[in-house]
Amino acid sequence: MIIETLSVFPHVFSPYLGASIMGRAQARGIFSFAAHDLRDWTHDRHRTVDDAPFGGGQGMLMKPAPVFEAVRDLSARGGCAPRVVFFSPCGSRFDEGVAARLSRERRLLFVCGRYEGMDERVYGLADDVLSLGDYVLTGGELPALVVIDAVVRLLPGALGDEMSARDESFSDGLLEYAQYTRPADYDGLRVPEVLLSGDHGAVSAWRRKSAIERTARWRPDLLAGAGLVEDEWELARRAMGKGRDPRDPGNGDSATGGE
Amino acid sequence: MIIETLSVFPHVFSPYLGASIMGRAQARGIFSFAAHDLRDWTHDRHRTVDDAPFGGGQGMLMKPAPVFEAVRDLSARGGCAPRVVFFSPCGSRFDEGVAARLSRERRLLFVCGRYEGMDERVYGLADDVLSLGDYVLTGGELPALVVIDAVVRLLPGALGDEMSARDESFSDGLLEYAQYTRPADYDGLRVPEVLLSGDHGAVSAWRRKSAIERTARWRPDLLAGAGLVEDEWELARRAMGKGRDPRDPGNGDSATGGE
Repeated sequence: MIIETLSVFPHVFSPYLGASIMGRAQARGIFSFAAHDLRDWTHDRHRTVDDAPFGGGQGMLMKPAPVFEAVRDLSARGGCAPRVVFFSPCGSRFDEGVAARLSRERRLLFVCGRYEGMDERVYGLADDVLSLGDYVLTGGELPALVVIDAVVRLLPGALGDEMSARDESFSDGLLEYAQYTRPADYDGLRVPEVLLSGDHGAVSAWRRKSAIERTARWRPDLLAGAGLVEDEWELARRAMGKGRDPRDPGNGDSATGGE
Repeated sequence: MIIETLSVFPHVFSPYLGASIMGRAQARGIFSFAAHDLRDWTHDRHRTVDDAPFGGGQGMLMKPAPVFEAVRDLSARGGCAPRVVFFSPCGSRFDEGVAARLSRERRLLFVCGRYEGMDERVYGLADDVLSLGDYVLTGGELPALVVIDAVVRLLPGALGDEMSARDESFSDGLLEYAQYTRPADYDGLRVPEVLLSGDHGAVSAWRRKSAIERTARWRPDLLAGAGLVEDEWELARRAMGKGRDPRDPGNGDSATGGE
């Protein structure tokens, strides 16, 4: 896959995309990356990319011309046109389904805004307008990195042998089950006994139960799409009734093994 | 504000936090930043932070001991205990309200997981467990950067004179109105006439209408909390009926000035 960014801060991407899992995926040829500088498509000596908003107001907007010229120019280069992705609070909410869809593209171009926002007309260039959530960031660079990370890890071979994109939160419509590693007792906090039993059937059943209970407590909105059978709905209903603080996952349960 | 991260990749933060708005905010003393290496709290010569999951399964989990020791050690240092933030799909959804709440803390410590996840017991250390959305990333580093960016920009003086955290999406419960800058006509795409009129009252009314219509089309879930008056509800209902593609904000409207 070819991944490109268009931004006034082209240097913020490579330190992340060159390190760790992303760096190894690039080295293996799973994806290639290029960060383009939007200022390369300006024509004045100050390389101006922003201007004041019509109608007044604070802050500066990104001008339409450099964005139009850059996206058209980059799209015409290379063997295939990129899927062009913008970020905006008006966009579709990014989720694992969108990541999976984007992971099937051959070439992605992420256009990252800065300043107060972009001239509205540039969104006509977008194949996708995405929103990461209901919060405001100083630019589109971090959203682009988030989407690139989520997409690349789904590409075949990207995670290597040491990890897997399967068996995780959202892959079966549920949050992931609670996980534990050694020691079995850390400072009085004990791992649920069943996980130490070596009984694969019992471990598997416990994990399904854990995933359903955690989803019922913290993300009951996901249950409807998770294909639960009747016994599992009963388990989910009981878990929802527990009224735990959604910001405190796991602690009480892991100490008692009661999950 | 003091901001710290605990991670096995301490080097990925500074390239972003040292550049642009974040870099200037640090230089002005708006916040200080330190990235701690989780491996500094290991005691074996390989500095091991991960181990296989109990009960079997692919991938490695972060061990409890280094995380417990690091968080306790860091919390005991300095004048005030940090608010400790973890990331998990089981966490509370991060939004602008959470960013505002965190922006009032004196010290924040972000604990970033890697590998398949963390031993469930470590979440007992958390003051907040946050989720950025329904997608899976290779680690907690990008979520930490996203939260830091959203929080820092709310700190007084962080944005300097050139930008403002007011008048943006979510600040009045609505998406932001469409914005335009010069030229008034770009390749046939025209800015709505009212924005060129110099009539401040008309501009203000158009912007309110634009914000309501955009919210009605793309985020109708926000309307209930936006304090609309009856005429505005009528406007919102008409906008919802237009049935536009939510992934295509602005393009048609901006060309016709019809928004």
